[in-house]
Amino acid sequence: MGYQEYTIEGRNAVIEAFRSGKPIDKLFLLDGCQDGPMMTIKREAKKHDTLVKFVTRERLDQMSETGKHQGVIAYAAAYEYAEVEDILQAARKKEEPPFLILLDNIEDPHNLGAILRTANLAGAHGVVIPKNRSVGLTAAVARTSAGALNYTPVARVTNLAKTIEDLKKEGLWFVCADMDGTTMYDLDLKGPIGLVIGSEGEGVGRLVKEKCDMVASIPMKGEIDSLNASVAAGVLSYEIVRQRLGKR
Amino acid sequence: MGYQEYTIEGRNAVIEAFRSGKPIDKLFLLDGCQDGPMMTIKREAKKHDTLVKFVTRERLDQMSETGKHQGVIAYAAAYEYAEVEDILQAARKKEEPPFLILLDNIEDPHNLGAILRTANLAGAHGVVIPKNRSVGLTAAVARTSAGALNYTPVARVTNLAKTIEDLKKEGLWFVCADMDGTTMYDLDLKGPIGLVIGSEGEGVGRLVKEKCDMVASIPMKGEIDSLNASVAAGVLSYEIVRQRLGKR
Repeated sequence: MGYQEYTIEGRNAVIEAFRSGKPIDKLFLLDGCQDGPMMTIKREAKKHDTLVKFVTRERLDQMSETGKHQGVIAYAAAYEYAEVEDILQAARKKEEPPFLILLDNIEDPHNLGAILRTANLAGAHGVVIPKNRSVGLTAAVARTSAGALNYTPVARVTNLAKTIEDLKKEGLWFVCADMDGTTMYDLDLKGPIGLVIGSEGEGVGRLVKEKCDMVASIPMKGEIDSLNASVAAGVLSYEIVRQRLGKR
Repeated sequence: MGYQEYTIEGRNAVIEAFRSGKPIDKLFLLDGCQDGPMMTIKREAKKHDTLVKFVTRERLDQMSETGKHQGVIAYAAAYEYAEVEDILQAARKKEEPPFLILLDNIEDPHNLGAILRTANLAGAHGVVIPKNRSVGLTAAVARTSAGALNYTPVARVTNLAKTIEDLKKEGLWFVCADMDGTTMYDLDLKGPIGLVIGSEGEGVGRLVKEKCDMVASIPMKGEIDSLNASVAAGVLSYEIVRQRLGKR
């Protein structure tokens, strides 16, 4: 398994991390700050024996990845990336046909965070991202995932096209989102499935797209080019949910 | 009609604004910057007789609302808010049952921008936001709307509950998104409709919710509390699209 360092920024995020039992290595607090949430954080830090350093606002600004530290930055034990096999295992355990979301070219941490939330709530068993061409599990992603990162496994692979090939042998079908595809309602998305989402600008890479069994399009009535990537992922994921529920 | 000042930041956004014929009042460029996109912007400015000022990076950083000016900030003629009546008129003109998206408590410009894109592509005739409890049409919203702001009218009203009451007299039905609602697939969303979306934290305000005819929920399988607000808006908007298309 791979590891990656990450920071948690902002009061609620840090309090939530403590409460969910995430091991925090080190805590940087704005010196002289004494309000309620800050006292809560200090209490939690004491309870968990976390090393606390009091620093200046300048220092926090410098360390901050998100620009929204609110006087609190924590260094946490890194999120662990899962293996693709762990995701399949989760599906087996739930006795459900696997539902994976694969991301290509998603560089915006807000989009990745929002997609992790969608994956969690739509019942996807995990998310697969490529080592290149994707933002990793950074502090901003953790924050915007609103806790989903604690529940939904994320696997990181070297070659997305290769991973798709391997997963096909496990019986998965792959559908990628693209404007030139078949309207999503007219596809059968009920079986074991990998949903491939690309970036808004570049879409899904050619090699990846070629590996897909189906291309699904979302009906578009307006003038502009594309939905936000996390919205597109949400709409397609919920079409899968709908078909699996047998709802019409 | 109301007006609001706004700025456009970043190279592509400014080039796109020029090309779509948006009247730009004033242009601030990073002094000494001579690369390709910058030369394109200078050419466009000359062509459109736009006042150009060359300034330092510090000055741009200070002016920037998004922190991502890339050496270019434009002051544009403000976006015009539409009236609610304009939105109904747009529906009549297309001979479609009205489809409005009403937002309560959406403070995040990325979410508003993404929702405007969804509104445009899902064929909503317009978006209604309250004067309080909503981010306005700022530079960040314009940027994240990816052009949707040029096509989809946005009306700003003093009292969302009152607007809902007025629109009911026009034959609209209102559905709000909330977890305690009826699964969206089991509601009839085909008629003239207003979809009400609240913030992730606070949801739809009580007074607004009380005015709604239906409460729709998105099926949630996971552990976390809620979808990102713009994803929820996307999923519900596309359930309306699906029902209107008569797709099963």
